[in-house]
Amino acid sequence: MDLGLLYSGGKDSTLAALLLADFYDVTLVTAHFGITDDWKNARDTAEATGFDFEAVELDHDAAVTAVERMVEDGYPRNGIQHVHLHALETVAAMGFDAIADGTRRDDRVPTVSRAQAQSLEDRHDIDYIVPLSGFGRGAVDRLVAATLDVESGPSDEIRKADYEAELRTLLAREHGAETIDEVFPAHEQTYVTGFTERR
Amino acid sequence: MDLGLLYSGGKDSTLAALLLADFYDVTLVTAHFGITDDWKNARDTAEATGFDFEAVELDHDAAVTAVERMVEDGYPRNGIQHVHLHALETVAAMGFDAIADGTRRDDRVPTVSRAQAQSLEDRHDIDYIVPLSGFGRGAVDRLVAATLDVESGPSDEIRKADYEAELRTLLAREHGAETIDEVFPAHEQTYVTGFTERR
Repeated sequence: MDLGLLYSGGKDSTLAALLLADFYDVTLVTAHFGITDDWKNARDTAEATGFDFEAVELDHDAAVTAVERMVEDGYPRNGIQHVHLHALETVAAMGFDAIADGTRRDDRVPTVSRAQAQSLEDRHDIDYIVPLSGFGRGAVDRLVAATLDVESGPSDEIRKADYEAELRTLLAREHGAETIDEVFPAHEQTYVTGFTERR
Repeated sequence: MDLGLLYSGGKDSTLAALLLADFYDVTLVTAHFGITDDWKNARDTAEATGFDFEAVELDHDAAVTAVERMVEDGYPRNGIQHVHLHALETVAAMGFDAIADGTRRDDRVPTVSRAQAQSLEDRHDIDYIVPLSGFGRGAVDRLVAATLDVESGPSDEIRKADYEAELRTLLAREHGAETIDEVFPAHEQTYVTGFTERR
């Protein structure tokens, strides 16, 4: 069964790929808006970990809507959620038997409700799988330490490929660079460089 | 890392074990009340699938409380939930680094909330993992078909080892056999006999 996993090059989505690798033919899919070429960092991680890789361009309107929403709210949560759901819809339409993402049990955003998951599955006739939804932060950290080599740091310094960086770029362009710290400040992120020796 | 997985011999908990097997030293743990020797069916499945196995006896009071609750409610949900939480507490006290169960995304019972999961983890200094919580019924069925040989049928005819059969036995003993159909009727269950040839 072919599975497309929404992929950022970070520890969560890489661990999600490893959890599924025995059961599906996994393709790492990095969704981007064409605003930066950060998605190439995810392609490098896919190569280092031996997974198939595809990049897919999202609808630019989704980025504009998300950034407007962030500025209106004064915080990023609903904007991120909007882009994540749009990205899932996009990957669901790519022809895989199943799609997945790297959301953890303790993530506050993005979150996909059971009803939203069921709707996605029914409309696209696919399985939608969240392999880390039953793993808390501690379990994820311990599994990552045992299996992956990871760089970590603030999200404006670390290599990464998720659309957060593109949303910050768009935010700065439309509303001024100072808006980033006000509504969507950089936070600790990770970038996977390969497997630990033990793996 | 040593992980104890609450195990029934059915398809869900067996699939959960396979999902975790690359990342943990998995022991299948079958909890029972000493009312029947159905737990031996789970031991047989553990042997057929090559996993370590332990049986653990639960507190008889938990069975009595569950059965009283089922009769009072007229349905089994809260009684099952009571026993499941007691079983998790019991396995959490056995000394594993992590514990897990085979609950799926679409299960209505048992359910363990994020707050209950966090509390279990904090009090016992363990990780509590629900590997199938991000898998819907369709995804589980497709993975099971690809990996496991399974018998299925009504829960009063199929070999199985979960405590449901023991609770029905206790229910019949305390409240009469007709109570089973009234408050805790048999439903479709599965029993794993081994791996498919493809696995």
